[in-house]
Amino acid sequence: MVDPDEVNALAQLMTWKTAVANFPYGGAKGGIGCNPRELTVSELERVTRVFTQKIHDLIGIHRDVPAPDMGTNSQTMAWILDEYSKFHGYSPAVVTGKPIELGGSLGREAATGLGVVFATEFLLDEYGMSIANMKFAIQGFGNVGSWAASFIHQKGGKVVAVSDITGAVKNPNGMDIPALLKHKEKAYSLKDFEGGDAMNLNDVLVHECDVLIPCALGGVLNKEIAADVKAKFIIEAANHPTDPEADEILSRKGVIIRPDIYANSGGVTVSYFEWVQNIQGFMWEEEKVNYELKRYMKRAFSDIKAMCHTHNCNLRMGAFALGVNKVARATVLRGWEA
Amino acid sequence: MVDPDEVNALAQLMTWKTAVANFPYGGAKGGIGCNPRELTVSELERVTRVFTQKIHDLIGIHRDVPAPDMGTNSQTMAWILDEYSKFHGYSPAVVTGKPIELGGSLGREAATGLGVVFATEFLLDEYGMSIANMKFAIQGFGNVGSWAASFIHQKGGKVVAVSDITGAVKNPNGMDIPALLKHKEKAYSLKDFEGGDAMNLNDVLVHECDVLIPCALGGVLNKEIAADVKAKFIIEAANHPTDPEADEILSRKGVIIRPDIYANSGGVTVSYFEWVQNIQGFMWEEEKVNYELKRYMKRAFSDIKAMCHTHNCNLRMGAFALGVNKVARATVLRGWEA
Amino acid sequence: MVDPDEVNALAQLMTWKTAVANFPYGGAKGGIGCNPRELTVSELERVTRVFTQKIHDLIGIHRDVPAPDMGTNSQTMAWILDEYSKFHGYSPAVVTGKPIELGGSLGREAATGLGVVFATEFLLDEYGMSIANMKFAIQGFGNVGSWAASFIHQKGGKVVAVSDITGAVKNPNGMDIPALLKHKEKAYSLKDFEGGDAMNLNDVLVHECDVLIPCALGGVLNKEIAADVKAKFIIEAANHPTDPEADEILSRKGVIIRPDIYANSGGVTVSYFEWVQNIQGFMWEEEKVNYELKRYMKRAFSDIKAMCHTHNCNLRMGAFALGVNKVARATVLRGWEA
Amino acid sequence: MVDPDEVNALAQLMTWKTAVANFPYGGAKGGIGCNPRELTVSELERVTRVFTQKIHDLIGIHRDVPAPDMGTNSQTMAWILDEYSKFHGYSPAVVTGKPIELGGSLGREAATGLGVVFATEFLLDEYGMSIANMKFAIQGFGNVGSWAASFIHQKGGKVVAVSDITGAVKNPNGMDIPALLKHKEKAYSLKDFEGGDAMNLNDVLVHECDVLIPCALGGVLNKEIAADVKAKFIIEAANHPTDPEADEILSRKGVIIRPDIYANSGGVTVSYFEWVQNIQGFMWEEEKVNYELKRYMKRAFSDIKAMCHTHNCNLRMGAFALGVNKVARATVLRGWEA
Amino acid sequence: MVDPDEVNALAQLMTWKTAVANFPYGGAKGGIGCNPRELTVSELERVTRVFTQKIHDLIGIHRDVPAPDMGTNSQTMAWILDEYSKFHGYSPAVVTGKPIELGGSLGREAATGLGVVFATEFLLDEYGMSIANMKFAIQGFGNVGSWAASFIHQKGGKVVAVSDITGAVKNPNGMDIPALLKHKEKAYSLKDFEGGDAMNLNDVLVHECDVLIPCALGGVLNKEIAADVKAKFIIEAANHPTDPEADEILSRKGVIIRPDIYANSGGVTVSYFEWVQNIQGFMWEEEKVNYELKRYMKRAFSDIKAMCHTHNCNLRMGAFALGVNKVARATVLRGWEA
Amino acid sequence: MVDPDEVNALAQLMTWKTAVANFPYGGAKGGIGCNPRELTVSELERVTRVFTQKIHDLIGIHRDVPAPDMGTNSQTMAWILDEYSKFHGYSPAVVTGKPIELGGSLGREAATGLGVVFATEFLLDEYGMSIANMKFAIQGFGNVGSWAASFIHQKGGKVVAVSDITGAVKNPNGMDIPALLKHKEKAYSLKDFEGGDAMNLNDVLVHECDVLIPCALGGVLNKEIAADVKAKFIIEAANHPTDPEADEILSRKGVIIRPDIYANSGGVTVSYFEWVQNIQGFMWEEEKVNYELKRYMKRAFSDIKAMCHTHNCNLRMGAFALGVNKVARATVLRGWEA
Repeated sequence: MVDPDEVNALAQLMTWKTAVANFPYGGAKGGIGCNPRELTVSELERVTRVFTQKIHDLIGIHRDVPAPDMGTNSQTMAWILDEYSKFHGYSPAVVTGKPIELGGSLGREAATGLGVVFATEFLLDEYGMSIANMKFAIQGFGNVGSWAASFIHQKGGKVVAVSDITGAVKNPNGMDIPALLKHKEKAYSLKDFEGGDAMNLNDVLVHECDVLIPCALGGVLNKEIAADVKAKFIIEAANHPTDPEADEILSRKGVIIRPDIYANSGGVTVSYFEWVQNIQGFMWEEEKVNYELKRYMKRAFSDIKAMCHTHNCNLRMGAFALGVNKVARATVLRGWEA
Repeated sequence: MVDPDEVNALAQLMTWKTAVANFPYGGAKGGIGCNPRELTVSELERVTRVFTQKIHDLIGIHRDVPAPDMGTNSQTMAWILDEYSKFHGYSPAVVTGKPIELGGSLGREAATGLGVVFATEFLLDEYGMSIANMKFAIQGFGNVGSWAASFIHQKGGKVVAVSDITGAVKNPNGMDIPALLKHKEKAYSLKDFEGGDAMNLNDVLVHECDVLIPCALGGVLNKEIAADVKAKFIIEAANHPTDPEADEILSRKGVIIRPDIYANSGGVTVSYFEWVQNIQGFMWEEEKVNYELKRYMKRAFSDIKAMCHTHNCNLRMGAFALGVNKVARATVLRGWEA
Repeated sequence: MVDPDEVNALAQLMTWKTAVANFPYGGAKGGIGCNPRELTVSELERVTRVFTQKIHDLIGIHRDVPAPDMGTNSQTMAWILDEYSKFHGYSPAVVTGKPIELGGSLGREAATGLGVVFATEFLLDEYGMSIANMKFAIQGFGNVGSWAASFIHQKGGKVVAVSDITGAVKNPNGMDIPALLKHKEKAYSLKDFEGGDAMNLNDVLVHECDVLIPCALGGVLNKEIAADVKAKFIIEAANHPTDPEADEILSRKGVIIRPDIYANSGGVTVSYFEWVQNIQGFMWEEEKVNYELKRYMKRAFSDIKAMCHTHNCNLRMGAFALGVNKVARATVLRGWEA
Repeated sequence: MVDPDEVNALAQLMTWKTAVANFPYGGAKGGIGCNPRELTVSELERVTRVFTQKIHDLIGIHRDVPAPDMGTNSQTMAWILDEYSKFHGYSPAVVTGKPIELGGSLGREAATGLGVVFATEFLLDEYGMSIANMKFAIQGFGNVGSWAASFIHQKGGKVVAVSDITGAVKNPNGMDIPALLKHKEKAYSLKDFEGGDAMNLNDVLVHECDVLIPCALGGVLNKEIAADVKAKFIIEAANHPTDPEADEILSRKGVIIRPDIYANSGGVTVSYFEWVQNIQGFMWEEEKVNYELKRYMKRAFSDIKAMCHTHNCNLRMGAFALGVNKVARATVLRGWEA
Repeated sequence: MVDPDEVNALAQLMTWKTAVANFPYGGAKGGIGCNPRELTVSELERVTRVFTQKIHDLIGIHRDVPAPDMGTNSQTMAWILDEYSKFHGYSPAVVTGKPIELGGSLGREAATGLGVVFATEFLLDEYGMSIANMKFAIQGFGNVGSWAASFIHQKGGKVVAVSDITGAVKNPNGMDIPALLKHKEKAYSLKDFEGGDAMNLNDVLVHECDVLIPCALGGVLNKEIAADVKAKFIIEAANHPTDPEADEILSRKGVIIRPDIYANSGGVTVSYFEWVQNIQGFMWEEEKVNYELKRYMKRAFSDIKAMCHTHNCNLRMGAFALGVNKVARATVLRGWEA
Repeated sequence: MVDPDEVNALAQLMTWKTAVANFPYGGAKGGIGCNPRELTVSELERVTRVFTQKIHDLIGIHRDVPAPDMGTNSQTMAWILDEYSKFHGYSPAVVTGKPIELGGSLGREAATGLGVVFATEFLLDEYGMSIANMKFAIQGFGNVGSWAASFIHQKGGKVVAVSDITGAVKNPNGMDIPALLKHKEKAYSLKDFEGGDAMNLNDVLVHECDVLIPCALGGVLNKEIAADVKAKFIIEAANHPTDPEADEILSRKGVIIRPDIYANSGGVTVSYFEWVQNIQGFMWEEEKVNYELKRYMKRAFSDIKAMCHTHNCNLRMGAFALGVNKVARATVLRGWEA
């Protein structure tokens, strides 16, 4: 049920991502091969506790720090924290993505979406542009997509097309995002939104816009579709939305791509901030969280650009080179002898 | 000599108080059944050390953190710290209320008094008022009362009546608090202060004023006296100054009471800040301490008001509901299964 | 090869220095009796690791924290960190002066030089003067001297004479320090610098100037030379540059001496900041490091002046009194009983 | 449901008992206030595990070592061991009375009964008698009584009367104990045993015999019955079978009583042996267990006699004096200073 | 280089073997994928130390206890012990098969061979026979085979055929084993031994004899050869010498086989004794070691026979059933709940 | 007051002594520079506790195990045990020479004296002699000398001369040692013993006898006296009784000397047995202690003889060679690499 190779690949990606973002984390992944939807809450709690009993001396506040991923959430983190604390005393820093009542960070829920918007802003700024009045197409309207859309809307950007699995809407003048969110909350669907026109789900990616933000699955931008993309900028809020062939086609067309390794790092960055707050025993206000997120993303962007400049490469390659370089340099410095 | 039920009740109160103030502490109390005034300094030091040897693995920087209370002071904390450190290495965060030379916080001495004044300020602000030019009666002129009086004086408030066990003074135009402090330091008494007239000790509570601040014992506001209180606002700087019957009488009269659980939480809040500074290995300047105290008290007030609004209750009930609610929510999140 | 008495004396000095600077460190020294230049890198790494194995439970993030000194550098710290972490888990706070990639602090390289300049600034300020337009003679142009010269140059001071073991240059109008640094980088020597005239190495100390900053060896200011010193102020960037006889002669001449225990404490102070950042799991920007360094040095200066005022003594005596006093007070507070 | 005073009294008794038996144990008792018969096996296991989680750092192989008592058995010990081992690694010595498969001792099941017979043998030997051909009345035929009867039968003693809650049988020539055991196993009752005649339950205690062994409840020998006892020797296999008044009456009649503190110590002694085997990582054969039990009981008897001789007292008083004395002596030797 | 499945299978076998032998061990295997013959001694030592650094908190005196196997020896154990002790203090019980100077057991070198002879003796005894005057064929003359031959010779058995990779010798009257050992020590070969006649290597297995003892590789007794075996008894000193088909053929012929899981357990049993001696801090004399080995093997044989009787199966099946049963029973007793 | 070089020398001697006796101990010495006779019992207890607090993590049941030496006794060990146990839990094995009530060994008091007699017996046996009817002169009649005399008397030896600082007695037919002990107990002196004649203190060493046992100070056998010694055998019960010159003279005369490193090792050997009993949680009977002491001393004698044979040296040299050899071999086996 769990593919070790895929787990391994994700753990490596996480390693480069935290190195690019420049905080003292590595990357690791682990899990239980089960379908949480088939378990009762009591079973979920018990399986989580037994799992924690088995790994409690492999994780730790200065070792590996779990955070929610597929099939887990802040309640899962609370159970891990509770069980871990039986062995090591109360240790809120041992997991992140916790409920706020147990030491979670303000601002974490919106963090990935906000990070995507910062990434967009810094990129546009390179070209003398800004979000205000630009046109955005957003594929995926879950946690990441809806927060990104909200922040773009706040900053004056026009969200001209949005889709999720329930439908797609467009409006060449930009949609009223708060209204769209309310609609979705009520209707459980994007369909029938009065502030826009229905459109084909698949057309969002090739919709007329300045910036395309794929926020859903990997591999959506492939060689079939790449040539038809209208956007000048792509911000990879999803993991791996662009496959290698599409990447080449888009590059040749001059589309600028902000790679996932950087663009969607807002979530893990605020996970790190949550850990910092727990370590320091002192929680930050939401403004401080967002301010530091912006600062971290700005510095990382500047480091990636420097790397692109040195190696004369695109942003994706620059980001990877930056991450691998940092890990390699630290490894050499720690030494080789027994 | 020590009544377990009373200790237990105080430990519970502390739990709600820290939950209201919103920092990651619970509440606990413990002590030795002896009269410290009957022991030599050497005996006090030794009894403190043996006590520490017996509890050293029940307290801890991430477990229970003692602070001075009845019959103990910063020197006691220094001895506990020293003995604890024999077992666990130098650990300044294991006690608070320490001497500054051993990691104590600036601003802690004045913290309860300053917190009382913040509580007053925020409350008045609700009614479009401010401390300047308001009239205050203060019962009790020890550590809490004298600091509260000083800060009120600084902010332009008129302290029109003050009492302690040595006497009581009044002046309808407000007294010169720095002068009163100097007088007391010299005379060891409030009597014969030239800047005011002597008055009956018991009359302070029913003196003409806008704000009454009881800073001494519990139970001073009872049904005998409640009807005669002139103040529109009462700030409970002491623990339990108002008994339940008086509470009802005052409520019916429309007197607004700031409950002790919130009003006198400045001391424990700065104890928490001291712990934070020790945990972080970096001490704050006094301005920072006071700034954070104000911020914490403002947020707690805002949370209490929200609770009062939701449950349509008075401030005392709102504060308790807030505290109990937070603890209950955290307990549920941590889970039930073995 | 290693003289235990000298090691002991240095450890004591460090104790007073950290007490003056007011951070929660003591002082200790230790090392291996070997000549690192006679060992291969592999041998150095292995001898460092075995050393670490032997002392790993005597040092610790809350115990003793090594930093580079004679014959060691940031690479050595990296090896200690790596070996220590085998026993205690990854613990960047266990050493300071680390490579930035492994948790070292920004600003640490320049810290001693910058501290020297802060010390100079505060002292001049006492006399209503400022660095701008003052004349400086700097003996020693290594890490400390060159950073000090750079900062003085930035602040508008005139560096009129500089020497190191390769030569000495002078220019009554002040030299272009960035140019001098470039020259030295290329020529590996101060000789033949076009922006100044060569001068006798030994004459720097008695050169015409307002402020003399000895940044090299101990004992350079002795009774032979003291009478000829022209400077009104001496800032001891080196350890023990002034011997006791010279100290007296200079005092009698009215020369104001900023003692080493204070003047060169910038390095250890930023080592402390590095530890704080590691403890907190959050790194500071360089501006923050320099801001805090200035704040710490200002407070220490103010404390020393208060001590000089109380005891009516010079700066050197005031600094020592301050350090010893703090340690004594903490010792008394921790108590005597078993 | 659990009476703290009674728990405390039992803990003290255990302390004197282990001191008399001369092994390095103290005494403690603890438990959960519930009726195990009302819980499912799964509930019992889970309540045992949670209990263990709460006390795991109060017990330990060199601290307190639980063993089965009322309402618990070897399966309970297995669960405690399993849960404890999650925290401290596999530690069979942390409980005794374990299943043999998990480190329990051979011979433990029969140990109390065997100890009772050793106690009888040594006592008779003092009077030049032996078990062979003596007449025994045994009240109680559970684990202790049936093992005692079996060993007496093996040694040639005549068990002339036996009772339990299901009935009572007598035979003046002694009964065939193996046959009686088989009968009881089949019939779940002592009734209708062909090898003896039915008798009144209560008459066993006053039956004609040389040695009376009460193996059931406390308080069965009271002032109503004491005068009618025919036995010359009483071996207290139960706890507190003789109340103080009966004790005096029997003493005056010249009946020799072997007190419970000594007579039924076989069980806890073999618990200690189980711990020794676990500590040593090496299990004993059953012969070795029984040999050592005999040796320990012989030495304790000899120590009690010496104490009786010194203080001119009876066996009960001698046994208590021995136990209290040992604990007091060890306490003095460990010292008083902080 | 290392096949995980094979390692796993061996670890399981070890688990059943220790369960049959009845000591509190499980089974585990691990190693480094390298050829020790291609490494210098210094490289071997360093690779062993790094390996130990990585596993030091997975092994332990009450956890997993390494012993020498393929490519490792007592020197390897000494290095592991030394490195482990850096982390956990001097802990001789953490490895077995150590040099005697560092806590190794007397008698361990000969233990497997001696155990084979005990296994033989007990089996013959079942048939009213004894080693004296019986005829033995031994394939393999390394550590196991030569010690087995020596003990058989001492007990009066006739070793009529012996082979190793250097040659094979036979003598129908039995050979002088001490002489054969001396010959081999000098000649590094079995060839040209004067006390017997050369024979074909492969003929040893089908040589005329009462007891055949394969001490070399697995799989030597296969369907090609099984029908020709003359022995009435086979003692499996090697691991897996008989393949399943041969097993069936031999069974049908009425040959009695002592399975490897029991027959060659002498080595691991004395490893356990070494651990016991280290745990107890007290070393045994060689006689004690051999006496306990005999006792353990006798008990295990008796347990296997009981199992064969219950399940009406042969010795191999009885041994497996015994081992698996014990592990299953312990697992059930430890419980299932979280 | 304490000479580090002498402490070091004694620590080394202890190392060779334990290596010769063949148990897993090294050697170390430490102490406090004070005169215990000038301290009150309370001061002694407190200084012992503070000392223990400072060294508690340098000693340990598997590290260094203190035992009484000059100026300390079993009460001191009890205090160390009690204080140590505050830090590490109750750990009787952390000291030896404890009071029996706290885990001390039976037989330890007499152990050095008994060991001296075993050493004598084995030596005489080499020459076909036995203690019975041999003549012994014993210098020193404290703990060692009086126990040695008693055992010799029991075995039929004739103690013809005895001295201590109070006097000297002789009797050519051997003295009644139990009577002499009683006399000394009453008279606090050897003088006026009726069972012998007074003699000059110094003449004991040159008295007519077969075996001379110096049990008092070092250096008593020097070149002045060596030529006059009449004994054929000298057993060094004291440390260093024979100086190097006397050693040579006596050797040339053919006197056989049993060196101190072996002859007086009975005390430390039983200290080791005490530790073993504590480690095993099971105390030995006195017979077992004495039996094992004899076994250990017999083996050591046999090993020394083998060494003398190999190196063709005398017993003193053989014993040293044996001790150093064992330590060297273990050191080599533990390895050199980092």
